[in-house]
Amino acid sequence: SPGARCFLRHIGAAGFRGWVRSVRPQKENLFLHVNDGSSLQSLQVVASSELNHRLLTFGSAVEISGSLVTSPSRKQDVELQADQIDVVGECNPVDFPFKIKEKHGLEYIRQFPHLRCKTNAFSSLLRIRSEATAAIQQYFKEKGFIQVHTPVLTSNDCEGAGELFQVEVSSKNQDEEGHQHFFSVPAYLTVSGQLHLEVMAGAFPGVYAFGPTFRAENSQSRRHLAEFYMVEAEISFTQSLEDLMKVMEDLFRSTTEHLLSQCPEDVALYHKHVSPGYRVRHQKYLKRNTMITYTEAINILNSSSKKFAFKTDWGSDLQTEHEKYLVKHCGDVPLFVTDYPYALKPFYTRDNQDQPLHTAAAVDLLVPGVGEMCGGSLREERLDLLKSRLAQAGLDETYGWYLDLRRFGSVPHGGFGMGFERYLQCVLGVDNIKDVIPFPRYSRSCLL
Amino acid sequence: SPGARCFLRHIGAAGFRGWVRSVRPQKENLFLHVNDGSSLQSLQVVASSELNHRLLTFGSAVEISGSLVTSPSRKQDVELQADQIDVVGECNPVDFPFKIKEKHGLEYIRQFPHLRCKTNAFSSLLRIRSEATAAIQQYFKEKGFIQVHTPVLTSNDCEGAGELFQVEVSSKNQDEEGHQHFFSVPAYLTVSGQLHLEVMAGAFPGVYAFGPTFRAENSQSRRHLAEFYMVEAEISFTQSLEDLMKVMEDLFRSTTEHLLSQCPEDVALYHKHVSPGYRVRHQKYLKRNTMITYTEAINILNSSSKKFAFKTDWGSDLQTEHEKYLVKHCGDVPLFVTDYPYALKPFYTRDNQDQPLHTAAAVDLLVPGVGEMCGGSLREERLDLLKSRLAQAGLDETYGWYLDLRRFGSVPHGGFGMGFERYLQCVLGVDNIKDVIPFPRYSRSCLL
Repeated sequence: SPGARCFLRHIGAAGFRGWVRSVRPQKENLFLHVNDGSSLQSLQVVASSELNHRLLTFGSAVEISGSLVTSPSRKQDVELQADQIDVVGECNPVDFPFKIKEKHGLEYIRQFPHLRCKTNAFSSLLRIRSEATAAIQQYFKEKGFIQVHTPVLTSNDCEGAGELFQVEVSSKNQDEEGHQHFFSVPAYLTVSGQLHLEVMAGAFPGVYAFGPTFRAENSQSRRHLAEFYMVEAEISFTQSLEDLMKVMEDLFRSTTEHLLSQCPEDVALYHKHVSPGYRVRHQKYLKRNTMITYTEAINILNSSSKKFAFKTDWGSDLQTEHEKYLVKHCGDVPLFVTDYPYALKPFYTRDNQDQPLHTAAAVDLLVPGVGEMCGGSLREERLDLLKSRLAQAGLDETYGWYLDLRRFGSVPHGGFGMGFERYLQCVLGVDNIKDVIPFPRYSRSCLL
Repeated sequence: SPGARCFLRHIGAAGFRGWVRSVRPQKENLFLHVNDGSSLQSLQVVASSELNHRLLTFGSAVEISGSLVTSPSRKQDVELQADQIDVVGECNPVDFPFKIKEKHGLEYIRQFPHLRCKTNAFSSLLRIRSEATAAIQQYFKEKGFIQVHTPVLTSNDCEGAGELFQVEVSSKNQDEEGHQHFFSVPAYLTVSGQLHLEVMAGAFPGVYAFGPTFRAENSQSRRHLAEFYMVEAEISFTQSLEDLMKVMEDLFRSTTEHLLSQCPEDVALYHKHVSPGYRVRHQKYLKRNTMITYTEAINILNSSSKKFAFKTDWGSDLQTEHEKYLVKHCGDVPLFVTDYPYALKPFYTRDNQDQPLHTAAAVDLLVPGVGEMCGGSLREERLDLLKSRLAQAGLDETYGWYLDLRRFGSVPHGGFGMGFERYLQCVLGVDNIKDVIPFPRYSRSCLL
């Protein structure tokens, strides 16, 4: 059976190694469940009841030699008949914050960032996150995209994507003068790799980046982190938002299908215990999504009887309350909103040159429960339009290098970013973003 | 042929798209080479000599419709008989810093970080970097390692791995008081994900990280960057340095073999044009490496007739000049140096408890031309030894959480880090580290 094959792989000359999940002494035998982290499944270990099991506590680390045999029980295919069990790392059950047979909520285990990987919920999350990472990279590789390591440190300071972190040499390492910048110029943590990807889009059919991104927003919200992961793609030779939406949809679908096939038990743990009933809703997301323009969105909001806290005039930004309403209104499935007001969008967004409602070729993907998961746009590839927009904003000198991209072999192109943690929240039904990242960093918290 | 199949994949309904690499007008025909970035190979395009080719300059972007036919020339299998050629992005040859038929050195092209991807050398590098990333991830996935996104921001400040960058909210975003830390505590850019990986090694057979790492060292050296990529692995249930060395060696070999099979032309460009004669030397690295202890290394240095600038007493750190000498002395192949003086190594290194020469279980991998490429160690898993060492250093409170890892199901474990850029330098024979990363950041330079 696959289960047996899987355990055989992990029983080498040194025996089976892992952490004790349960201990059940019976008259003739002692039954243990031992987990080695390779899957949610633990191996049943059977030892003589004469074995001293004082140190075989929940969480202790063991090395076991013995023979793998067919299990007489229906609960598992195989079990390990132990000849010898060595406790290599004890675990005092009084001090250990996780208790055997107790169900600990995600909020409780979040208090112990250095130990929470020892719970089923968080070890499943880490396997899922690792598989999702692999799936995303496989998706882009198969489509011929080149992965680019866009820099964390950047001297771009005015993309307007959010509050910035600034970086300097640590005060204890600064020399006497102390005030000179390490890089000669102020340096910031990146808020997006887009502009750097656009550089590379000038030589490849498609490029992507997958790495940490930063916002210094003073938020404790369940959807924001100071450090989070973003998948960003840039596609050359495209003039259509539909092309971008197709990639976003494909990426979402293929990554999710990969997860469901590669770690079904880990995903099921979330769909059964963390967000019961989520599986059915989630399947709907994979099947169907819908698309409206920003102008249609405004019309929907204005024809609603609901009173919103924020304005819904044409030209106002969509707020979380609006996004939630729109997703519900459109069938509680992923919703693309396209063609936002030109004035709301950053300088690089392609001008639709329409009237009287002047829009730009931008698109957001909103998903139930999470809100905005992806944002993208066609980029203004026309030198004259870009130049005059940058000049108006007084940015034409700062972005001289960016204008150069339009001077030397410019191509129509576009791209998008997907918040990786928001994707995981959406797939698993996890309410708080802090529970889908190994070490959450947010306002007032940077543990370890 | 594979070449023809490859180009067929890229000629869709919209035609073939790419950037002009050469233009050769002849009596009856106009010959172009157009590169789409998917490989080093350009497609030969044949058009009527009557076509106005004024805008078909080196670097311009084109869309071409036509039919792919067998080429009469031996130089290529197929060529594109063009019906129509559209220049979608012009490229003024006077202003464009790269000139047709000129050989530009890596140092010259490095001056144009926003355009250098348009050269053969750098587009090859980007494809190689992307493939090497995929190979590393594939290697670890096949071995059952979980990929962990260790944080960039950390409150750990005293690992002693180098000079730190400190992070605060940008001054323009700071409130009136201005001096309160965003995270309540000082936050730094990570110098290593090791301690965070050790957290996760407490629940999995093996974990790894692959991401950006930072040093605020005031260096302009050809081997140092302020932001560079590191591959870090942590292996549970091991008590032998040999296990670690085996993984380092395997990783080096399998990644390199993947590169040689997946992008042979790109690698050949470096081995032929950038570092001529490198291929032969490099093949030797794959076949053989050698291993000495630190104590043997000191004996070798002391029996040498060479005068070194730095001390070679037992207990002194090995300097670059020593590393170079040792690598040469041992046959100019990769060299493992093991069991360094206990006093030289950080608190987490496992005590060998030997005498009179007190050593710790650490290992470095030195490679010809580059020097240190990997460093690793067994970690001290024994609570009492770790506790007393941390107490001596006055760090026991700061690292209370790290001691907890040894209290609750601790296992013998070890790991290593490999500098990704140094790996690329070693494989390609590139002298300057700034030429193997998309956007190099170093003292006084943070362009774009």
